[in-house]
Amino acid sequence: MPETVTVPRGLAGVVVTDTTIGHVRGLEGFYHYRQYSAIDLAERRTLEDVWALLIDGALPSSTAAADSFVAEIAPLRHIPPAVAAALPSIAAASSSVEPMGGLRAALAVAGLASGARPLYDTAPAERRAQAMRLCALTPSLLAALYRLRLGLEIVEPRDDLPHAANYLYMITGTVPSPSQVAAVEKYLISTVDHGFNASTFTARVIASTGADLYACIGGALGALSGPLHGGAPSRALDTLDAIGSVDQADDWLRSRIVSGDRIMGFGHPIYRTEDPRSRMLKGVAQSLGGPLVDFAVAVEARVLSLLAELKPGRELHTNVEYYAGVVMELCGLPREMFTPTFATSRVIGWCANVLEQAEDSKIIRPDSRYVGPPPPQPVPDRHQD
Amino acid sequence: MPETVTVPRGLAGVVVTDTTIGHVRGLEGFYHYRQYSAIDLAERRTLEDVWALLIDGALPSSTAAADSFVAEIAPLRHIPPAVAAALPSIAAASSSVEPMGGLRAALAVAGLASGARPLYDTAPAERRAQAMRLCALTPSLLAALYRLRLGLEIVEPRDDLPHAANYLYMITGTVPSPSQVAAVEKYLISTVDHGFNASTFTARVIASTGADLYACIGGALGALSGPLHGGAPSRALDTLDAIGSVDQADDWLRSRIVSGDRIMGFGHPIYRTEDPRSRMLKGVAQSLGGPLVDFAVAVEARVLSLLAELKPGRELHTNVEYYAGVVMELCGLPREMFTPTFATSRVIGWCANVLEQAEDSKIIRPDSRYVGPPPPQPVPDRHQD
Repeated sequence: MPETVTVPRGLAGVVVTDTTIGHVRGLEGFYHYRQYSAIDLAERRTLEDVWALLIDGALPSSTAAADSFVAEIAPLRHIPPAVAAALPSIAAASSSVEPMGGLRAALAVAGLASGARPLYDTAPAERRAQAMRLCALTPSLLAALYRLRLGLEIVEPRDDLPHAANYLYMITGTVPSPSQVAAVEKYLISTVDHGFNASTFTARVIASTGADLYACIGGALGALSGPLHGGAPSRALDTLDAIGSVDQADDWLRSRIVSGDRIMGFGHPIYRTEDPRSRMLKGVAQSLGGPLVDFAVAVEARVLSLLAELKPGRELHTNVEYYAGVVMELCGLPREMFTPTFATSRVIGWCANVLEQAEDSKIIRPDSRYVGPPPPQPVPDRHQD
Repeated sequence: MPETVTVPRGLAGVVVTDTTIGHVRGLEGFYHYRQYSAIDLAERRTLEDVWALLIDGALPSSTAAADSFVAEIAPLRHIPPAVAAALPSIAAASSSVEPMGGLRAALAVAGLASGARPLYDTAPAERRAQAMRLCALTPSLLAALYRLRLGLEIVEPRDDLPHAANYLYMITGTVPSPSQVAAVEKYLISTVDHGFNASTFTARVIASTGADLYACIGGALGALSGPLHGGAPSRALDTLDAIGSVDQADDWLRSRIVSGDRIMGFGHPIYRTEDPRSRMLKGVAQSLGGPLVDFAVAVEARVLSLLAELKPGRELHTNVEYYAGVVMELCGLPREMFTPTFATSRVIGWCANVLEQAEDSKIIRPDSRYVGPPPPQPVPDRHQD
């Protein structure tokens, strides 16, 4: 029986674990995977290279090693028949086109079909194999559930396409343009991991019980679906739609800011500077160009100017949602697939965290403080009325 | 950006939240639900009464209120058609008869089919309705998955049977005897909740993001499946089988204890006394009687005697697994259904915790400490080999 320890609410700042995966420096507007700036990685490497960095701890050491990693992924993207058999009923039960809830069901079935064993009973090589399979399969499940729900044929993965390109292809059925692939790939790389957020923590708590990888990722997906965590990259775009045009922006924004409403796409619990992901994605959006980009840039400038006028001293900047939504829209992704697209990359970060947690034998089991009426009170008999 | 706070490993003793649901006093061998001893409740009330205590905060205030609660549950036990449609493919994907992984998939589908909305967007009455439905449905899903996997017809719930009796009936297809129902009901009541364990904590972390109830319970089920947490009530019984007979017990146990192996069914991370659940379930087993009970009692005595001789000073006692397994075996539950049976009651405790967490607007988001090579290192170019 440990002594109880009182800490800040929501465990804010409480160090649960040491990690070598990465961290966020909110005051500096900087975050990293291993020893590299995540933004530098997004600018200079492929998604598969960064995936290797997260899961194996290092960037591929040669072109041959990188190619071998890519070749390892391709066959794992195909949905096993036992999982495919469950997808129509999962899609049919879904009231929404958005396939995040369906993914939780489909991954649970995939865990069953793969006979995934508890982390507690498995060696590192088997755990890694589980993680590779789960990360590779997730985009295929999301694309399949999305298309099934719309009554479309499932598009089989193409082994010759890189991961980001194949993902877009499985959703739309068309091979995307190189500029679309480059844009989405940068977004995916920049969202693979992001410190010790609630979904990553959830995955690690479940991993600490020795459960199987699918149980851990299922919990993380659940946490990501929470409005206070995963957010929805489509919300910022919905706001742009609601504003309509640049000349209506000031009236719309001013009334929201004055009444204290949140402007979607602005503000982050950790960053006190511009979100480095937003800065990069703004550049990506501008390289794609077009009226939506011009509009988004204009609205951003108006928000920052109005905030400086109406809420002086508030450090509010665009967060990852804002330009991510613009980029995904320009790359042909339907809005229902914005959060799922986020999940296709974040699942790699979760798996890296689960593999790291599996090396720690200590269960994560905090405590609560009972504040109700003191026990034991006598239990009243039934039938006393 | 909060300052970081260093705490004991695994968050041991770290108080995450205040609660009025209950607590465990490990040094006293005592645990409670609200202001009542859980064991007193198991001895004197029905499962439905205790369910009301956990979810609504008080025991039913009259016979009419208790009857009304029972009547509310019965229709919610029926599996909705959209969920039933998914069960055959989930069962077919399962490599094991044990339906815990299948339950995660089935509950995810049930969440989709019920259109469960995020806790963040719902009022207390809607959250309670979600919880009632999920708790009522869980035993039906487990029984259906178990029977489907064995190629048996699903047994529909019977609205006239109390919850524990109906659960046994849906598994076996036969109405159980009153003594079997009473025994299983005591077990279920005694396992509804048990302090702030890893699965309960998982449910609350996910709830703190504002996700829907099904996401929270899916994560908790994942944590419960971990060998370091949920255990398996069948393991202790497997040990009794391996020992075989009383005259072989000493040799078998002595070699295990000398080599430092764990004896399944003995020891608990929180209790430093006898597990109060074990003490009660031993009485329940003895009231059922028979050779298995006599054997279990004899082996318990030998374990305690050998431990006193070989590991003096170690406070090891039977835990909930030991006599729970005996009781469930005598009540006709197959061993693959021991952990699922545990889940049918614990889901009530999880839901009570989720409903309580939903009243707290603060996300649970701790921190980690980065201990890898210092960033930012320059990202090497590709194709440099």
